[in-house]
Amino acid sequence: MPHTSLHRTPMQGPAQILTDISDGIGTITLHHEAKRNALSEHMVQEMIQAFDQFKQADVRVAILRALPGIKVWSAGHDVTELPAGGHDPLSWQDSLRTLIREVEVFPGPVIALIEGGVWGGACELVFACDMVVATPEATFAATPAKLGVPYNVTGLLTFLNVAPPHIAKELLFTGRPMTAARLERQGVINGVVPAEHIGAHVFEMARTIAQNAPLAVSVMKEQLRILAGANAVSPGDFERIQSLRRVVYNSQDYAEGIQAFKEKRLPHYHGE
Amino acid sequence: MPHTSLHRTPMQGPAQILTDISDGIGTITLHHEAKRNALSEHMVQEMIQAFDQFKQADVRVAILRALPGIKVWSAGHDVTELPAGGHDPLSWQDSLRTLIREVEVFPGPVIALIEGGVWGGACELVFACDMVVATPEATFAATPAKLGVPYNVTGLLTFLNVAPPHIAKELLFTGRPMTAARLERQGVINGVVPAEHIGAHVFEMARTIAQNAPLAVSVMKEQLRILAGANAVSPGDFERIQSLRRVVYNSQDYAEGIQAFKEKRLPHYHGE
Amino acid sequence: MPHTSLHRTPMQGPAQILTDISDGIGTITLHHEAKRNALSEHMVQEMIQAFDQFKQADVRVAILRALPGIKVWSAGHDVTELPAGGHDPLSWQDSLRTLIREVEVFPGPVIALIEGGVWGGACELVFACDMVVATPEATFAATPAKLGVPYNVTGLLTFLNVAPPHIAKELLFTGRPMTAARLERQGVINGVVPAEHIGAHVFEMARTIAQNAPLAVSVMKEQLRILAGANAVSPGDFERIQSLRRVVYNSQDYAEGIQAFKEKRLPHYHGE
Amino acid sequence: MPHTSLHRTPMQGPAQILTDISDGIGTITLHHEAKRNALSEHMVQEMIQAFDQFKQADVRVAILRALPGIKVWSAGHDVTELPAGGHDPLSWQDSLRTLIREVEVFPGPVIALIEGGVWGGACELVFACDMVVATPEATFAATPAKLGVPYNVTGLLTFLNVAPPHIAKELLFTGRPMTAARLERQGVINGVVPAEHIGAHVFEMARTIAQNAPLAVSVMKEQLRILAGANAVSPGDFERIQSLRRVVYNSQDYAEGIQAFKEKRLPHYHGE
Amino acid sequence: MPHTSLHRTPMQGPAQILTDISDGIGTITLHHEAKRNALSEHMVQEMIQAFDQFKQADVRVAILRALPGIKVWSAGHDVTELPAGGHDPLSWQDSLRTLIREVEVFPGPVIALIEGGVWGGACELVFACDMVVATPEATFAATPAKLGVPYNVTGLLTFLNVAPPHIAKELLFTGRPMTAARLERQGVINGVVPAEHIGAHVFEMARTIAQNAPLAVSVMKEQLRILAGANAVSPGDFERIQSLRRVVYNSQDYAEGIQAFKEKRLPHYHGE
Amino acid sequence: MPHTSLHRTPMQGPAQILTDISDGIGTITLHHEAKRNALSEHMVQEMIQAFDQFKQADVRVAILRALPGIKVWSAGHDVTELPAGGHDPLSWQDSLRTLIREVEVFPGPVIALIEGGVWGGACELVFACDMVVATPEATFAATPAKLGVPYNVTGLLTFLNVAPPHIAKELLFTGRPMTAARLERQGVINGVVPAEHIGAHVFEMARTIAQNAPLAVSVMKEQLRILAGANAVSPGDFERIQSLRRVVYNSQDYAEGIQAFKEKRLPHYHGE
Ligand code: NI
Ligand code: NI
Ligand code: NI
Repeated sequence: MPHTSLHRTPMQGPAQILTDISDGIGTITLHHEAKRNALSEHMVQEMIQAFDQFKQADVRVAILRALPGIKVWSAGHDVTELPAGGHDPLSWQDSLRTLIREVEVFPGPVIALIEGGVWGGACELVFACDMVVATPEATFAATPAKLGVPYNVTGLLTFLNVAPPHIAKELLFTGRPMTAARLERQGVINGVVPAEHIGAHVFEMARTIAQNAPLAVSVMKEQLRILAGANAVSPGDFERIQSLRRVVYNSQDYAEGIQAFKEKRLPHYHGE
Repeated sequence: MPHTSLHRTPMQGPAQILTDISDGIGTITLHHEAKRNALSEHMVQEMIQAFDQFKQADVRVAILRALPGIKVWSAGHDVTELPAGGHDPLSWQDSLRTLIREVEVFPGPVIALIEGGVWGGACELVFACDMVVATPEATFAATPAKLGVPYNVTGLLTFLNVAPPHIAKELLFTGRPMTAARLERQGVINGVVPAEHIGAHVFEMARTIAQNAPLAVSVMKEQLRILAGANAVSPGDFERIQSLRRVVYNSQDYAEGIQAFKEKRLPHYHGE
Repeated sequence: MPHTSLHRTPMQGPAQILTDISDGIGTITLHHEAKRNALSEHMVQEMIQAFDQFKQADVRVAILRALPGIKVWSAGHDVTELPAGGHDPLSWQDSLRTLIREVEVFPGPVIALIEGGVWGGACELVFACDMVVATPEATFAATPAKLGVPYNVTGLLTFLNVAPPHIAKELLFTGRPMTAARLERQGVINGVVPAEHIGAHVFEMARTIAQNAPLAVSVMKEQLRILAGANAVSPGDFERIQSLRRVVYNSQDYAEGIQAFKEKRLPHYHGE
Repeated sequence: MPHTSLHRTPMQGPAQILTDISDGIGTITLHHEAKRNALSEHMVQEMIQAFDQFKQADVRVAILRALPGIKVWSAGHDVTELPAGGHDPLSWQDSLRTLIREVEVFPGPVIALIEGGVWGGACELVFACDMVVATPEATFAATPAKLGVPYNVTGLLTFLNVAPPHIAKELLFTGRPMTAARLERQGVINGVVPAEHIGAHVFEMARTIAQNAPLAVSVMKEQLRILAGANAVSPGDFERIQSLRRVVYNSQDYAEGIQAFKEKRLPHYHGE
Repeated sequence: MPHTSLHRTPMQGPAQILTDISDGIGTITLHHEAKRNALSEHMVQEMIQAFDQFKQADVRVAILRALPGIKVWSAGHDVTELPAGGHDPLSWQDSLRTLIREVEVFPGPVIALIEGGVWGGACELVFACDMVVATPEATFAATPAKLGVPYNVTGLLTFLNVAPPHIAKELLFTGRPMTAARLERQGVINGVVPAEHIGAHVFEMARTIAQNAPLAVSVMKEQLRILAGANAVSPGDFERIQSLRRVVYNSQDYAEGIQAFKEKRLPHYHGE
Repeated sequence: MPHTSLHRTPMQGPAQILTDISDGIGTITLHHEAKRNALSEHMVQEMIQAFDQFKQADVRVAILRALPGIKVWSAGHDVTELPAGGHDPLSWQDSLRTLIREVEVFPGPVIALIEGGVWGGACELVFACDMVVATPEATFAATPAKLGVPYNVTGLLTFLNVAPPHIAKELLFTGRPMTAARLERQGVINGVVPAEHIGAHVFEMARTIAQNAPLAVSVMKEQLRILAGANAVSPGDFERIQSLRRVVYNSQDYAEGIQAFKEKRLPHYHGE
């Protein structure tokens, strides 16, 4: 990254992200290492503010990254913020969902720059970016099945849109981390670049885009968003799915998954 | 596979499959080598029974395989069971279609473990599984164009859902076998593992899934199934397609294709 | 290519393509090197005539190629034919769109054989073919963002149908050339073959298909076409998109992009 | 009704419906006047049993009615069974929804014979029948807006499918009863017949249908069901709607509506 | 009708229709009273020729009628032309389906002028016209359930598009004739006019349209056609429906219905 | 109307509407009789401001009306504001389209109260309201075919959503006025009430709705809006339609229609 000073976004409580604008390129750096950059309500609000600030500053391309050399890019949902059983943990107002919509409607491309592990909801956030570049050591793990959380339909659609179905299912059903190299080979991510070069590489990619015609780029992004969301589902199917998801978040396993996570032990599931 | 004894499913006539349940993982082993594991009406009925048995036994993950060391995993449709010209060879009640729906709605993931050649309808069956792991020697050939059979829409959708369109077309239009290595590179299958390790590898994958929350896995599978089938076609387009398919199965070429197969010679087509 | 003589298609003005039929395989060779095989109105009309001629001659497979050893396979739209600002540059009657529909409804598979650079609209034309084989030196660049042209929805759907979304976005947002090797790895193209062998390789592929049952191949191609176009968009979304595109082709940047191209200089955009 | 004896369906607790089969025509008579035939869990279970019994007895047409001369055909949901705030009152497993699906998939037509008032959920049940005949005194009132209940999407689709949108909105937004004469004029119901003749009239209509080819009738009903449910909604829109509905059933107004109903007073709403 | 001379369309065998063009308005008069204007293959071919002739003559509006004073406007399908059991009686190439598509894509509005009875397939043909005007004595009967014929999806969509679902079901399930007055009241037809005035009334309506801007009318008709056919059905649902229809046309009841019709007796159905 | 004083909305230039809020009910009264309440850019902006003001004032129901006793409720588009040929006259940013979206997303129901003639674009505006009540003398005329204007898809969808297709086509193809009585009979409008009572009648209807639970009403309106817009059109069909519409607004007839209107003479069309 050719620009060294990182500025704090003013907000109540200590900031959890850093932002920077340079050459028409806005950078958001996750900076809450104590919580492994978990996507807390607070951090998400800061990111939304940052995207607003970028829009006002006519930013053409945004980069989403963590600090260089980090071990965990983001641990995903702040599990302590998930509701206890009986309520949908992933509704439309959920902070992750709100952030993902923000990324999708930001008028310029958003590039994710990944070092370290990307877990759970952070995995969907990264896949929802327009492009993804990672270091060879980066890994991606989709963990709802590990936690017992019933993922929502638009969330699964993010996975299905960027990954071949067999690969998406392996990610989602095993919950095991997948390497950057494997995901690049299958077109899920755009490139694998060593840590020492990745900042310059992504910035160069952003600069190329920023020199293109911004309106043309912006309308293409919006057209692709509409096409990607055009999997039409009948109301009957959708209500049935919601009902199946409700069984899950009312189940003992759901409570066990969250409890186990908080107690830092393996969950023990019975399918009930 | 860590469990050695394989049990026969009780049924009239000699069984064509073996089934086994261990550690919450059910295994179906195709075992009708005399007919190269062709997907006969009889074998399909046994498989459907096995899936029912798995559901009652709370099986969390199913594995679909053939005997180790086999040359042909399955030859696909039993061509002798296809109707002569004048009737749709691939209707909703066709045994292959029924089996594929069974795989799709089975409440846990189904992993295909592939050694040897996978031909014709068996190719669709394998692609309809949730994950696929193969040995380096495995090959996949989609043969309807070779036989002159007009594939049906949901069948083609299975190919289009798991393979990039240019690759799906190469498979379907040439009918030539494609290697496991190539399909893995393009995200169509999940892994290539040498024959000596593949059993343990797949069983380990299944065990990982079986330890996750079963309800969460199950509802995600169902959501992905709905999304994958959501290619909405207008009634007008569909009836036109049915009509084009009818031209094919009423053609001389269709009769020639089946005849040539039975006489073990190359067909000679005129496009009529 | 086993057949050496290339015949000119009779038409007013010097022909811009060569055509040939042999063994039930029709070949169209772009042959307007002076204009880097730009897809002019004239060339497109010749290609449409050639496809008609192929249909009458019961051609089973078509090959679309340029002369061996060429540096630019096709430069895409003839920019001098694009309308000045204020009118949609990519409407349904646009010659490129007409040609692409012709490729999609041609009753047999169309294989693109690529040497050299493929730019802009030519990139979509090649991706709209049923299969693509390229030499290691071939590159593919989608340039609307460079020119400031708002691409249309069916055009973007061609990209989204054949490439993983993150890769499609990289192509479209950066406008930079992507290598054949990278596109093959991600399933966008079918093979990379050295220049000296590519002719024979593609002809062999075509011959394999031509020996299969033509009606079965033809109806599968049509079914896949219907399924690939089945991304249903609501009229409201569509009219909003048209309106966004109109903003683009009425913008100063659009005029600047075309002007800069004609003056062979880099455009300078302001997002207005 | 030409057949006078009505038989009780055996079940635990006093039966709330009567059933009868004669001439291939099954009749369900709501018979829980003490509760104004509210669609309690218990009554719905009995009706589902009755439809099962009809299927086993090869019933060709079903009639759904109340006792002759009744003032309230059905008061709709048993409001005391609705959940207090915080949970979706109209989920897929809701007894009304289950019953409506039962009516929709019953293999023969279901004719509603209406005397008296039809309120709330009963209004949707009647509209979901295949045909509706009413006495001149019958009235229909859709009351979710009066109670403050957020109706679900498939429920609203039932209204939108059978009534012109402006009429459906008047029913749903005002909550006021609409007369049979008005609904007949606009094609929402099939006929208005004086109380003394309505039984014979409906039975004659049923007999006409019962003499037609049962398989042809049955498959047409199923085709029309599929077409009527084919309003495809994008996952994003659906999740947003679910979220809006959640705001409603978490609101003070929702609690007030149910409370007021139980206290038999007018509710007082604040839009919060 | 202000124009008295009716010209025969030249064709092999005695003509079954009369055609006339005057003031930019083309009139097709069914004229095969011996067969009650049954929609035979021959008559349909003549009608398609007439529409072609109208297009070449820049006809702005077409009128479809029978001779004044006739008792049966059209008896619908020529039942003797329906296939015996085992083959789909209503495929895409069926002459009725072809004619209906011709009416739908004719560039100007088609007005049906109805005196007498309209039966079976003729009922769909009339509903597929853009407007319908009838005498008070006219009646409409949809008879597939009487004959045991499984109607196809686009055919049912024609009914569902023009009639409220409860009315469409009454028509289709009872097979009984419905009066013009009732259909006018519910918006299915546009007007009821006494026999002595109907010719002048319809011609005046046609003249009003013919004086409007033809291109604007034509594109609106096409837009409405697209919107009316936009009930998207998933491939899985469609193939299931085809399979249910196949059960019907393979049934004993189907054969019995056609046999009874030919023997001019009531059919006797068993649901098998 | 129980409230007598009407307040002017502050805005530059003389106000063209009056607004009033009373009992939670907001009323907009068109008041530009000199231009027959044509929907000018200026009037539309005032109406949008009024809806904003209503939202801030927690208005539960809006009434849209003209002054009592008026002869022309609204003449529709201000034809002098339509673009000359060569540009789409009905794009997404068109003031009528913007206003209609405003009506559709206003959180409470909007009731149109109609006296006098409703012409052209005003006809769509009225149909886009949630309910419509008219005096016996009111008439409705859809005039694009008279003017030669190619209507847009969402505009036609408004007609198709509220009127039976045969009636919608009669309105659109003839351009002739239809009476309130006829439209009420077919469910297109909600009631016909004599001029002396209509104000009180509509206000009473609004008050009934305003006493219901506002959140429940609001979410039902939004759900119905989504369902009504869910006619999914494929990108290919849409672009073809746009292209057909372009032919129309580039035609001589289009210019002639606008010219004739300005010169207050009948247009003379040639279909070119
Ligand atoms: Ni800085
Ligand atoms: Ni030659
Ligand atoms: Ni009895």
